[in-house]
Amino acid sequence: MPTKQIPVAVLGATGLVGQRLIAALDGHPWFELTEVAASERSAGKEYGQAAPWRLETPPPEGVAGLVVRGCDPDEVSAPLVFSALDATVAGDAELAFARAGRAVVSNARNHRMAEDVPLVVPEVNPEHLELVARQKTRHGGKGFIVTNPNCSTIGLTLVLAPLHRLAGLERVIVTTLQAASGAGYPGVPSLDLIDNVVPHIGGEVDKIESEPRKILAQLDGDTLREASFPVSAEVHRVPVRDGHLLSIALETRRSLDPEEALEALSSFRGEPQERALPTAPEQPILVTKDETRPQPRLDRMAGGGMSAVVGRMRRCPVLDLRFEALSHNTLRGAAGGTLLLGELLVARGLLP
Amino acid sequence: MPTKQIPVAVLGATGLVGQRLIAALDGHPWFELTEVAASERSAGKEYGQAAPWRLETPPPEGVAGLVVRGCDPDEVSAPLVFSALDATVAGDAELAFARAGRAVVSNARNHRMAEDVPLVVPEVNPEHLELVARQKTRHGGKGFIVTNPNCSTIGLTLVLAPLHRLAGLERVIVTTLQAASGAGYPGVPSLDLIDNVVPHIGGEVDKIESEPRKILAQLDGDTLREASFPVSAEVHRVPVRDGHLLSIALETRRSLDPEEALEALSSFRGEPQERALPTAPEQPILVTKDETRPQPRLDRMAGGGMSAVVGRMRRCPVLDLRFEALSHNTLRGAAGGTLLLGELLVARGLLP
Amino acid sequence: MPTKQIPVAVLGATGLVGQRLIAALDGHPWFELTEVAASERSAGKEYGQAAPWRLETPPPEGVAGLVVRGCDPDEVSAPLVFSALDATVAGDAELAFARAGRAVVSNARNHRMAEDVPLVVPEVNPEHLELVARQKTRHGGKGFIVTNPNCSTIGLTLVLAPLHRLAGLERVIVTTLQAASGAGYPGVPSLDLIDNVVPHIGGEVDKIESEPRKILAQLDGDTLREASFPVSAEVHRVPVRDGHLLSIALETRRSLDPEEALEALSSFRGEPQERALPTAPEQPILVTKDETRPQPRLDRMAGGGMSAVVGRMRRCPVLDLRFEALSHNTLRGAAGGTLLLGELLVARGLLP
Amino acid sequence: MPTKQIPVAVLGATGLVGQRLIAALDGHPWFELTEVAASERSAGKEYGQAAPWRLETPPPEGVAGLVVRGCDPDEVSAPLVFSALDATVAGDAELAFARAGRAVVSNARNHRMAEDVPLVVPEVNPEHLELVARQKTRHGGKGFIVTNPNCSTIGLTLVLAPLHRLAGLERVIVTTLQAASGAGYPGVPSLDLIDNVVPHIGGEVDKIESEPRKILAQLDGDTLREASFPVSAEVHRVPVRDGHLLSIALETRRSLDPEEALEALSSFRGEPQERALPTAPEQPILVTKDETRPQPRLDRMAGGGMSAVVGRMRRCPVLDLRFEALSHNTLRGAAGGTLLLGELLVARGLLP
Repeated sequence: MPTKQIPVAVLGATGLVGQRLIAALDGHPWFELTEVAASERSAGKEYGQAAPWRLETPPPEGVAGLVVRGCDPDEVSAPLVFSALDATVAGDAELAFARAGRAVVSNARNHRMAEDVPLVVPEVNPEHLELVARQKTRHGGKGFIVTNPNCSTIGLTLVLAPLHRLAGLERVIVTTLQAASGAGYPGVPSLDLIDNVVPHIGGEVDKIESEPRKILAQLDGDTLREASFPVSAEVHRVPVRDGHLLSIALETRRSLDPEEALEALSSFRGEPQERALPTAPEQPILVTKDETRPQPRLDRMAGGGMSAVVGRMRRCPVLDLRFEALSHNTLRGAAGGTLLLGELLVARGLLP
Repeated sequence: MPTKQIPVAVLGATGLVGQRLIAALDGHPWFELTEVAASERSAGKEYGQAAPWRLETPPPEGVAGLVVRGCDPDEVSAPLVFSALDATVAGDAELAFARAGRAVVSNARNHRMAEDVPLVVPEVNPEHLELVARQKTRHGGKGFIVTNPNCSTIGLTLVLAPLHRLAGLERVIVTTLQAASGAGYPGVPSLDLIDNVVPHIGGEVDKIESEPRKILAQLDGDTLREASFPVSAEVHRVPVRDGHLLSIALETRRSLDPEEALEALSSFRGEPQERALPTAPEQPILVTKDETRPQPRLDRMAGGGMSAVVGRMRRCPVLDLRFEALSHNTLRGAAGGTLLLGELLVARGLLP
Repeated sequence: MPTKQIPVAVLGATGLVGQRLIAALDGHPWFELTEVAASERSAGKEYGQAAPWRLETPPPEGVAGLVVRGCDPDEVSAPLVFSALDATVAGDAELAFARAGRAVVSNARNHRMAEDVPLVVPEVNPEHLELVARQKTRHGGKGFIVTNPNCSTIGLTLVLAPLHRLAGLERVIVTTLQAASGAGYPGVPSLDLIDNVVPHIGGEVDKIESEPRKILAQLDGDTLREASFPVSAEVHRVPVRDGHLLSIALETRRSLDPEEALEALSSFRGEPQERALPTAPEQPILVTKDETRPQPRLDRMAGGGMSAVVGRMRRCPVLDLRFEALSHNTLRGAAGGTLLLGELLVARGLLP
Repeated sequence: MPTKQIPVAVLGATGLVGQRLIAALDGHPWFELTEVAASERSAGKEYGQAAPWRLETPPPEGVAGLVVRGCDPDEVSAPLVFSALDATVAGDAELAFARAGRAVVSNARNHRMAEDVPLVVPEVNPEHLELVARQKTRHGGKGFIVTNPNCSTIGLTLVLAPLHRLAGLERVIVTTLQAASGAGYPGVPSLDLIDNVVPHIGGEVDKIESEPRKILAQLDGDTLREASFPVSAEVHRVPVRDGHLLSIALETRRSLDPEEALEALSSFRGEPQERALPTAPEQPILVTKDETRPQPRLDRMAGGGMSAVVGRMRRCPVLDLRFEALSHNTLRGAAGGTLLLGELLVARGLLP
């Protein structure tokens, strides 16, 4: 849609999500990766030397020769930056870019819950991007930050949204089985995941219990009114490379039967589909009738890693519905989601 | 307690649970393994030749030379038989033993839900063994069947019982992460569990949703009155060898706070502890304060594999309490549970 | 190259290699899959019902509706059949097809070592296909069988061939780390591969020690003269889904230095590359300088799963060279290798 | 044997090997753990607070309350110290203890190849401990360092020694499949070992190729004459928790047949067995006839984790013999080996 390629930068380019972003930007119809930035340790090196490439597909041509810049708006000129920075540094760095007039699409948690920062799943709450106007005032220019939710929250909210619209969520209980790549590299030691699962991921329960209520909030003027349904989350790290599996039980205001719910899920489409954004999957939510699925290895690449897959839908003996949902944590849940959000900014004409 | 060793037989001796039973009977103070029985395919062979031994510890001395018998009361003379038979053959075989006047302690699902068959977790509902009197009438002699619950149900019911007694369960939602050994050998293909989890185990959801209500039933004369709380279960097979992890959310009639719940769990004792049965763990439920536990590899051998370990107890934003429980599926959940039940029969003087 | 699509059938279509063949035939420029055949158990059913699809990519359109035929030339009309049959039935079935005038490209071991049956790695010994003329006489018609080597042998021979040509192999010691998919589905029980490796695969040592000498044989008129170098193999099953890793030590008549060997490997091309066969990778052997590779997960898809990847080349303190080679066992090692061999038959004008 | 308990300290007490040492010292008949020491980060804390305990068995009573000391002879008083220090700090720290008159039994690589430092597998070369006399002169007192070999070398040398004695080793080719615990904690990232193996372990090839020749060296006066046979090693990290598997091919001066070799291995005994040292296994090398073993999960605990298990012995088509050997890398290969070496020092009266 844009008349010429938009130059973009990736912050935190050496990490796992940064690499996924770089891979996803290769051959992108709208964006051209012109700069990569990372921590002091890597800055000044050629990208190919700064960190080993950890994906199955080889790095895009040309990237290896880019000189890694520092995560500072003075060293990076692109008007649009995708941030895969670690939370320990993302807060200040992203703020500096916003104040310097850049559009920041962030995958980090630091600014997600700020009042005037949109936390967006593009199919679910694109209208929250209107908060950007208010946020610009704060930064005193044209720059702003928009955020991509936690990798588990994205899959969860994507499948909750159609049911919430249809029948109003009353309460949600979710139990996750999360892939190792969610912790980045080096991440989880293999000694913790050989013949084992770990029922703990630092900070994850809080994110899953709070973020969906902001994403499903109603925009009232320039203020969000958070959704009121409580979410209960418990999380587990399992010996799987990619793909977060969620086991969900929920109650709705108006009781839904499983067929009605499946129909709402599989027919769900959003603005990315209407606008045919480059990274948007045709169908955000796929439904499987195979009672042994979704499975991470078989289903994580559905829709190019951008679709959630829902299965095992049935009446819950305790709440209303019980089902499983799977989504790819470093594609839909990180790099792909971030990229799709950048595309949405362009399509809505929000770039500085 | 018995004045001399009681001869016992193991039916289904070549399978994984059968092997665990044989290992557990080695050096048992009350029981002496005198006969092993298995399917036609193995009958007549020496046990050491009939099937490869799959445990880390070597087979007990003397067992390899036992001739495998058919699963028929005419071929087996022991008054007490432990059945690790597969459900496809357990139904008829166990009935035949009961009719032939033997006490059958079964690990198979076939007779679990029959009205006059006790389904027992020894710490939880030993009084249900009184049903045996009524059942003997049906079989027309001194023989009877008592059953050990499903491997997930046992851990679940063990940790539910103290809370039910204290405050009355209203509803329970459980999500399991189950070990591969639960499916026996060969069981789950490795292609299904490398870089993967499978959200399906045939028949398991039904067992977990129904069995706890029978185990926590009230005995009214010679009839059980099932507990009324609904259970919602979803199950997952994960790449772990032994140890089923349960993620539980529940509501009680009287709301409990986490500390009160933990106190009830860790102070819980039952008849096996009072009677100091040989296989009874000192403490049926251990509580961990480490927020990263229970983990299968670290905690499955607690109490010699006979204790459940509870952790991550907190208030649930949706129901009352949310926590994790782990128990060893082939020890407490199968071989050990079966053996403990046999010991309880002896201690209560119920052997034919 | 052929002027119109050649109808082909897949025998053993429901197994893992059969599924890989079907996936690889989708959109093939020369071949059109018109028939699928499998064991009695599946025959008569629709393919989509006969067996669950086990690949990450969905089954090609149209395949699900094909009626599965019996593995009998009377039920299958295609002139070219790809056999992914199990060795227990492949022997007779393939012979029947050859006698019925069909060209059989087989992945099974049964006929591999027969004197007049070519055992071919298309880049290595395409000239062995001339044996087909002699074999036709035996079958009394136009039909014949050509065979694809064992999945470990293929990768091994592919990397041995350039070194053999250059300097003459004197002796080879190989130690394998083989993926679970090599055993098909259900194959290896997960209990054998969780926290474990198994130093045994039935029949594999013999195949790896004998097949390379036939593949690297010299064709003398219509007779093969086997290569004389001995091969010593030891094999291990490891918890990896796809990709066989080979650790190789070898001695050559003329001593090679590592750089010379790497140059010979990376510059190696064969008839499939010269003829630009559809399934041929551009470069049959890729060389990596990363001392931590080849690794199954990162390198198995090199060249679309059709290239071997060689790394860690160095002087061996005992023999001459020591290095690692990886190839995809169900693509290059089975379905892809079989397909490439079929293409070679067409290009050489050998179809009936 | 000693008339009273000898006070000992563990340096590097918080790591995986340190924890194994502490566990192994619990209830030791000769040694009493009186001090634990670790890096600056931990020093001053209570041991129970300094690092999470990572073993399946709980920490020995009393240890949690010990205050962690710095790795400095001024802070540690025990005359005998077991060092599980990381190689980055072990060099200087161990030297300081030796100079301060202490006996150091080290598991680190730093001093292993020094001319006057014994590198000992207690069953294989106890006589090398005589080098201690010469070393004391260097340190100017009663202190000295003795070293435990690399975790792969120990298993390898243990099984090579009887064959070397019997027939003289000419050359050895070994390919390893090594467990994750060999890298300590956190060690290998799970992303590297899910659906993968890694053919690289830093420095390991050199250690395996050089250490066996020192261990099998002849002591000539106070000088070692290294064995002359070359060793070729290639190494792999596999998704196994504990237990290094070695695939070995070798040639001997006098050709051995497999039965003769197995007899030499299973009848092998050394000084630890003659002296009945507390940690010595009855039989240092066990032989299995099961063609699917040794397997890490099933065999690593043989002899309490102190015996190597050998299987799959056969004639090698290239060298003389081909077989598999397994030993526990953190027991025999680290903590247990170190402890056994300490016991040997006591038994030989070498303590300061």
